[in-house]
Amino acid sequence: MDERETAGKPVRCKAAVARKAGEPLVIEEIIVAPPNPREVRIQIICTSLCHSDVTFWKMKDPPGYFPRIFGHEAIGVVETVGENVDEVIEGDIVIPTFMSDCGECTDCRSKKSNLCSKLPFKVFPWMPRYETSRFTDLKGEVLYHFLSVSSFSEYTVVDVAHVTKVDPAVPPNRACLLSCGVSTGVGAAWRTANVETGSTIVIFGLGAIGLAVAEGARLCGATRIIGVDVNPAKFEIGKTFGVTDFVNSGNCGNKPVSQVIKEMTDGGADYCFECVGLASLVEEAFSCCRKGWGKTIVLGVDKPGSLLSFTSYEVLHSGKSLMGSLFGGLKAKSDIPILLKRYMNKELQLDEFVTHEVRFEDINKAFDLLIDGKCLRCVIWMNK
Amino acid sequence: MDERETAGKPVRCKAAVARKAGEPLVIEEIIVAPPNPREVRIQIICTSLCHSDVTFWKMKDPPGYFPRIFGHEAIGVVETVGENVDEVIEGDIVIPTFMSDCGECTDCRSKKSNLCSKLPFKVFPWMPRYETSRFTDLKGEVLYHFLSVSSFSEYTVVDVAHVTKVDPAVPPNRACLLSCGVSTGVGAAWRTANVETGSTIVIFGLGAIGLAVAEGARLCGATRIIGVDVNPAKFEIGKTFGVTDFVNSGNCGNKPVSQVIKEMTDGGADYCFECVGLASLVEEAFSCCRKGWGKTIVLGVDKPGSLLSFTSYEVLHSGKSLMGSLFGGLKAKSDIPILLKRYMNKELQLDEFVTHEVRFEDINKAFDLLIDGKCLRCVIWMNK
Ligand SMILES: [Zn+2]
Ligand SMILES: [Zn+2]
Ligand SMILES: [Zn+2]
Ligand SMILES: [Zn+2]
Repeated sequence: MDERETAGKPVRCKAAVARKAGEPLVIEEIIVAPPNPREVRIQIICTSLCHSDVTFWKMKDPPGYFPRIFGHEAIGVVETVGENVDEVIEGDIVIPTFMSDCGECTDCRSKKSNLCSKLPFKVFPWMPRYETSRFTDLKGEVLYHFLSVSSFSEYTVVDVAHVTKVDPAVPPNRACLLSCGVSTGVGAAWRTANVETGSTIVIFGLGAIGLAVAEGARLCGATRIIGVDVNPAKFEIGKTFGVTDFVNSGNCGNKPVSQVIKEMTDGGADYCFECVGLASLVEEAFSCCRKGWGKTIVLGVDKPGSLLSFTSYEVLHSGKSLMGSLFGGLKAKSDIPILLKRYMNKELQLDEFVTHEVRFEDINKAFDLLIDGKCLRCVIWMNK
Repeated sequence: MDERETAGKPVRCKAAVARKAGEPLVIEEIIVAPPNPREVRIQIICTSLCHSDVTFWKMKDPPGYFPRIFGHEAIGVVETVGENVDEVIEGDIVIPTFMSDCGECTDCRSKKSNLCSKLPFKVFPWMPRYETSRFTDLKGEVLYHFLSVSSFSEYTVVDVAHVTKVDPAVPPNRACLLSCGVSTGVGAAWRTANVETGSTIVIFGLGAIGLAVAEGARLCGATRIIGVDVNPAKFEIGKTFGVTDFVNSGNCGNKPVSQVIKEMTDGGADYCFECVGLASLVEEAFSCCRKGWGKTIVLGVDKPGSLLSFTSYEVLHSGKSLMGSLFGGLKAKSDIPILLKRYMNKELQLDEFVTHEVRFEDINKAFDLLIDGKCLRCVIWMNK
């Protein structure tokens, strides 16, 4: 389609619609409305599949909603800008993010927070500023949004607070990774934990996010990076991202994994990252942090309501701390460009995360690969 | 007694012995052995009563032990030094502390920790290095130690890692406060939280430790210090230590206190300190910390085994952190002298903590006053 033809009008295009929980996406034609004020419409170049897409795609009840357009790791080109948008223009290459960076609120102006107060993160089936949808199918039925991005569509509408303009020289199938997973992991080591040179770190779960934590810790100068996983095959791929030691948590005999790690590290690690999303592993991570200064960073999301339990004695007497990290503590608009620059300078590794690439019509293969644990990231090209 | 007479020999002196859990202390004559290598014997000048003394005095079963000599906030003069002690000499004025600062281990050499690994903090009825007692009664029965100090005796033996040499110009009934409670509170704001100028802080529980947190936060330049207590009388005394706002937690109607505080602070405080020792209040404190950067610092000790529960969602999505603080994160030998200097410079307020002073023979009055909530600190003079 020619931009001059579509600009400002509803656009008819292909999207992969999730009609029912857990059922294959259906590529169909939909109508994407023009952007409201402070929104932009983006033509997606490529998108990749993240575990959160799978989690919500399986979810029958709210916050699962259907029919819905998933996808939240992507890169695209601005096709139409809504009123009162001066941050980007038509033709800009942008990365949409599930986290807002409005630049105006107390949090966005503070160095200490990446949790925008104006458009706070919520798992929500609408556009963030209006609580309406920009998508309808050809019968006129409304399609729900996902995480303010909905990139499994040739065109999508995103709030301007959720887009970061990026250098068009970066290959899109690398840049799109910074839209969610890799940023979350690298940022957790870099921004949330602020890992120091010479540190020892432990990562529970060597999926894409755990490996991105390793990559972030390696960039920060960590000298010992211990990966914990039940799958020994993860160690080989881990080495690529700086993992120096591997603990097979299914193979620790009678010892809790925290005990094994305390022995390996002479008392505990400086930083522990929980990337699996199990409350019990958060407790293990807290336990194998070094007394006096160890920090446990929670990245994984457990089932809603699952409890972390610590005795107050443990917290009080340990000198340890516990913190969460959403989007790796990154501020999208300032930090994504820094990471892309480090990629272009060959400091940050991104290539190794992309284990598969498919055409848009094969998007359901990406689901199969991720669910089977066969890929780190599968890039889905919209027009190849 | 003349030092030259007693030095190096067992000394017979008066002590307040706790013979049975919860029963009044008995002033009786005991024998205090000379110090072992790396220990010093101290003649106590004055001591003050802290809540932990009361807690363990009430405790029938281990870690409650009887007969025992309580007391762990004190100041004294070195009367005999054991072998291999070159840190202090006879006649030095010293403050004993329940926390060790050996100066040699990884933690003592690190700026990040105050949890000595060589003589780690434990609730233990013996001398820290030998697991033996230096006290016997006149029948030859062993008397147990308390928190490596046992200051309710005219003479006591303390490990050299547990004593800090101080400026003899500081009045002893002020200096002794830095042996435990006031250091714990001031340090929690200064060292553990590192409160920044302009911060808003909330303190749950305005006892001596909570008030010391306020004093520490005031010294750090906090502009808003919100005290939470069930007793409105605490607000008046709180004002002395910089408390600017008071929330009566017994009087919040249907609202949780965290909700009241979030409304007062436009979203939450920068730092929240739990000084009561209730797991449920830790959760309230965590809840009323500002998303994005709020820190909750746990100072109170709940019953052993009581659990802190958070959903992993709360931790993950909040950008908040949770940490403990033991002895306010202070390193005794370097930080106590700094605080005493700030007292002498009229920056740190100590006088206002001392609400009562009694003679040694009236030590049980100090227990009554503290238990009835009638005093902040009661100083007990050994020889007045
Ligand atoms: Zn994601
Ligand atoms: Zn914002
Ligand atoms: Zn030490
Ligand atoms: Zn105490």
